[in-house]
Amino acid sequence: MTIKIIIAGPRGKMGSEAIHMVENEASFNLVACVDRINGGSQMKDVEGLPNLDVPIFEDAVACFGQVQADVFIDLTVPGAAFEHTKQALNHNIRPVVGTSGLSNEQIEVLTQIAQEVKTGCLIAPNFAVGAVLMMQFAKMAAKHFPDVEIIEKHHDQKLDAPSGSAIKTAQLIAETRRAKQQGHPEETETISGARGAEMDGMRIHSVRLPGLVAHQEVMFGGSGQTLTIKHDSYNRGSFMAGIKFAVNQVMNLDELVYGLENILE
Amino acid sequence: MTIKIIIAGPRGKMGSEAIHMVENEASFNLVACVDRINGGSQMKDVEGLPNLDVPIFEDAVACFGQVQADVFIDLTVPGAAFEHTKQALNHNIRPVVGTSGLSNEQIEVLTQIAQEVKTGCLIAPNFAVGAVLMMQFAKMAAKHFPDVEIIEKHHDQKLDAPSGSAIKTAQLIAETRRAKQQGHPEETETISGARGAEMDGMRIHSVRLPGLVAHQEVMFGGSGQTLTIKHDSYNRGSFMAGIKFAVNQVMNLDELVYGLENILE
Amino acid sequence: MTIKIIIAGPRGKMGSEAIHMVENEASFNLVACVDRINGGSQMKDVEGLPNLDVPIFEDAVACFGQVQADVFIDLTVPGAAFEHTKQALNHNIRPVVGTSGLSNEQIEVLTQIAQEVKTGCLIAPNFAVGAVLMMQFAKMAAKHFPDVEIIEKHHDQKLDAPSGSAIKTAQLIAETRRAKQQGHPEETETISGARGAEMDGMRIHSVRLPGLVAHQEVMFGGSGQTLTIKHDSYNRGSFMAGIKFAVNQVMNLDELVYGLENILE
Amino acid sequence: MTIKIIIAGPRGKMGSEAIHMVENEASFNLVACVDRINGGSQMKDVEGLPNLDVPIFEDAVACFGQVQADVFIDLTVPGAAFEHTKQALNHNIRPVVGTSGLSNEQIEVLTQIAQEVKTGCLIAPNFAVGAVLMMQFAKMAAKHFPDVEIIEKHHDQKLDAPSGSAIKTAQLIAETRRAKQQGHPEETETISGARGAEMDGMRIHSVRLPGLVAHQEVMFGGSGQTLTIKHDSYNRGSFMAGIKFAVNQVMNLDELVYGLENILE
Repeated sequence: MTIKIIIAGPRGKMGSEAIHMVENEASFNLVACVDRINGGSQMKDVEGLPNLDVPIFEDAVACFGQVQADVFIDLTVPGAAFEHTKQALNHNIRPVVGTSGLSNEQIEVLTQIAQEVKTGCLIAPNFAVGAVLMMQFAKMAAKHFPDVEIIEKHHDQKLDAPSGSAIKTAQLIAETRRAKQQGHPEETETISGARGAEMDGMRIHSVRLPGLVAHQEVMFGGSGQTLTIKHDSYNRGSFMAGIKFAVNQVMNLDELVYGLENILE
Repeated sequence: MTIKIIIAGPRGKMGSEAIHMVENEASFNLVACVDRINGGSQMKDVEGLPNLDVPIFEDAVACFGQVQADVFIDLTVPGAAFEHTKQALNHNIRPVVGTSGLSNEQIEVLTQIAQEVKTGCLIAPNFAVGAVLMMQFAKMAAKHFPDVEIIEKHHDQKLDAPSGSAIKTAQLIAETRRAKQQGHPEETETISGARGAEMDGMRIHSVRLPGLVAHQEVMFGGSGQTLTIKHDSYNRGSFMAGIKFAVNQVMNLDELVYGLENILE
Repeated sequence: MTIKIIIAGPRGKMGSEAIHMVENEASFNLVACVDRINGGSQMKDVEGLPNLDVPIFEDAVACFGQVQADVFIDLTVPGAAFEHTKQALNHNIRPVVGTSGLSNEQIEVLTQIAQEVKTGCLIAPNFAVGAVLMMQFAKMAAKHFPDVEIIEKHHDQKLDAPSGSAIKTAQLIAETRRAKQQGHPEETETISGARGAEMDGMRIHSVRLPGLVAHQEVMFGGSGQTLTIKHDSYNRGSFMAGIKFAVNQVMNLDELVYGLENILE
Repeated sequence: MTIKIIIAGPRGKMGSEAIHMVENEASFNLVACVDRINGGSQMKDVEGLPNLDVPIFEDAVACFGQVQADVFIDLTVPGAAFEHTKQALNHNIRPVVGTSGLSNEQIEVLTQIAQEVKTGCLIAPNFAVGAVLMMQFAKMAAKHFPDVEIIEKHHDQKLDAPSGSAIKTAQLIAETRRAKQQGHPEETETISGARGAEMDGMRIHSVRLPGLVAHQEVMFGGSGQTLTIKHDSYNRGSFMAGIKFAVNQVMNLDELVYGLENILE
């Protein structure tokens, strides 16, 4: 069976890679795009888009009404993503949403709609399967190893430290870890900051160097042993593999699922 | 509640560390030892054993009959371990068996007895919690990443390559991994052995260097990303933490469980 | 002072990145290109080349004769590179040659010419400064640690194992390492290939996984310790930094130097 | 030739391992010990010392006067070490000093004496050859890669952060590194300490976990690449290898050398 797909956000970095991914997958078929501009054109007629006979719609409702599709992939911005997803559900087209920043209230509304129309929907802040597994394994290991530190390494153009992924990992660990202040009770920093950022007694260290991409290791220590779970992301290919997986899985859902981890058995 | 414990094999490396572990745990109480020699003595009277008022028995049946205990820890050799465990079960003392090398038939017999007497029993070939988690995580990750290589590193006095743990890990991975021949179909080794040992299309690499202790990493690769799970064992302390955990857990069992992974929820 | 540069091979992957590098460096000025086609055009008039007012020559001799330049960067193929470099030297333009595959005889001829015309020239098979330092450090460490294993990791589209860099590293190590057969004399491979490829008693392990780019670690072991030197290459940017460094250094040379390591003090 | 050795501090952890090392080396011969107590006894008569026919002296001067020796190894405390070393030099016995904490003034005095009596002497704060090489390589790499972060990992009983070795490494790097403030100029810590301790614009991160021993990695980043130098210390064996090396090298010296790096060519 071929899965017919509509993509919103075809000119963005993620969207353009998603188009390539769909084109390269024998069982996927791109049937339309939703874009803020270029409505009424075919993709092949727009400079910068691939040479495809696929229609572009500016109005998502019109698109969902006129084009028969199975799955809708949204890679836009939070405001648009919410409206698109609502409409796709109302047309029984299953959304796979990689746009980050939807609010809890918006997700609640979408969950309600998905339930009413009995249509599958997947929303995930992180589509890198390896990163999601790293977090799940970390959460499981923390039951047995309450001593854990996170070392995340990124290129030196990154502005925030710690990374969002490191904070998310620490939050997941905190759900299973027995609360504990790590390190020796009398340890002292002879240079401030040496022991990293503290979250619930855990420590997070943020390395920034040119050349690096996006890397994280979660290190657990116990008597005579350490256990380390490490994810290295080299390019956006890691997200595309997760979106491809999600497209296949959403076909079997009849409700909204939040978080890729909940469809990775 | 204090858990009363009998240990078999007090003069071995594992046994002597187990005695220290039990002595250092407030809720554990060592009540007797089973040894091939020194029967009738107190531990404190035997050179090389710790200075404890704990009786030594050469006959396990006599020990289990005369001493009231909750848990029996066996760290001996397969033949003795089988007999000891059978007798402990018959006296409703819960065995924790760290002796490796029991046959499938022996485990089957012990499973049967444990069921009849409704007494918990834990037999595990590997008590390092971190190593067991590494294998479990590897098995889970392999569902999503069929491309995997194992790199195990040990001191250069190790005789066999790959290590038993690496082979066991590959076997567990094979249970969930979609069969696949890894590497490029036309890859060639310009020096034989470069691509390591092959098991079901996976590759295992064995590094041997002085200074190393026992280390293993399982590396998964996918589009644009790698996921690595690594265990480093520095000394036998890692086994003792697992035995301590098992002693506490076996109190809640009423049947035989094989493998530490089955009591790590 | 501005360094005036001619580049040969502007349409190749390396050449096009070299053009960007030169354009982004305030003290470098691109004054001409040598290409097999498009002679007589300006770069801006050729599709696929950057929008620059820089002339293209098909004939290197004509280019060197008509355009005043300080440095010539060759990123073509061995046959052309040899001729270009010979001519550049004869015009007292300093060559920086990143084209691999020149024969020992060719290098000998060019060394002779450079000496006669007292003109600097740098030829290097590897322009990644980090990789070159890794090899140098490995060679130095091997004096003190005769036990060493190399683990190189590449994407699974690579055809040869071990990698050329790993073999080169082992050759450099062999120059300082006391000959030694590593591992236990009685070690056995229960699965063939586990202990990797052997070179002079050293072992090389080649890992191939999708997602990986180009990575190598050299691990030394001694009593109670290990020392590891690791290089990770993520993209061609690492080569461009080396070429930029070489352009600046070649200005101070008056003879041919082979190998980037010989200008890294 | 056999090297005749006197050891001071035979009951300490280092001293007792040094005795084992000397005993296991065919070309070394232990001829006396200097100890604060047990003077006049043979080692075999003192509980806790090995079963050796080696005399113990409480008075170092008497020892050096009565026993013919080539090398004197001091593993005591700074005050005693200074006096012992002075006297050993005056008796033309070459000192190898692993005691840390000698002041610059004391080292200056000893340097003067060694020069006058033309006797070799080696004083080193760190005898782990791998750690010393790591620092040397880091200093060399920093010439080419000004962006560097240090991640040191130790057991959680360590009181100070960063470690002394990490600070020493950063100081050595600062000698060759072009001064630079690392990370993005506008980076912000959303949790304080995430970016680690700052030294001259470099960053140091201190990880503390049970199970760990003593580990440090120095990571350099540049365009498209990273270079990492890592030392793992598992036990005191690493120091003994350095002391053994120093004993052999000090035989060829006729002056005082400070720092193991200065005898590692």
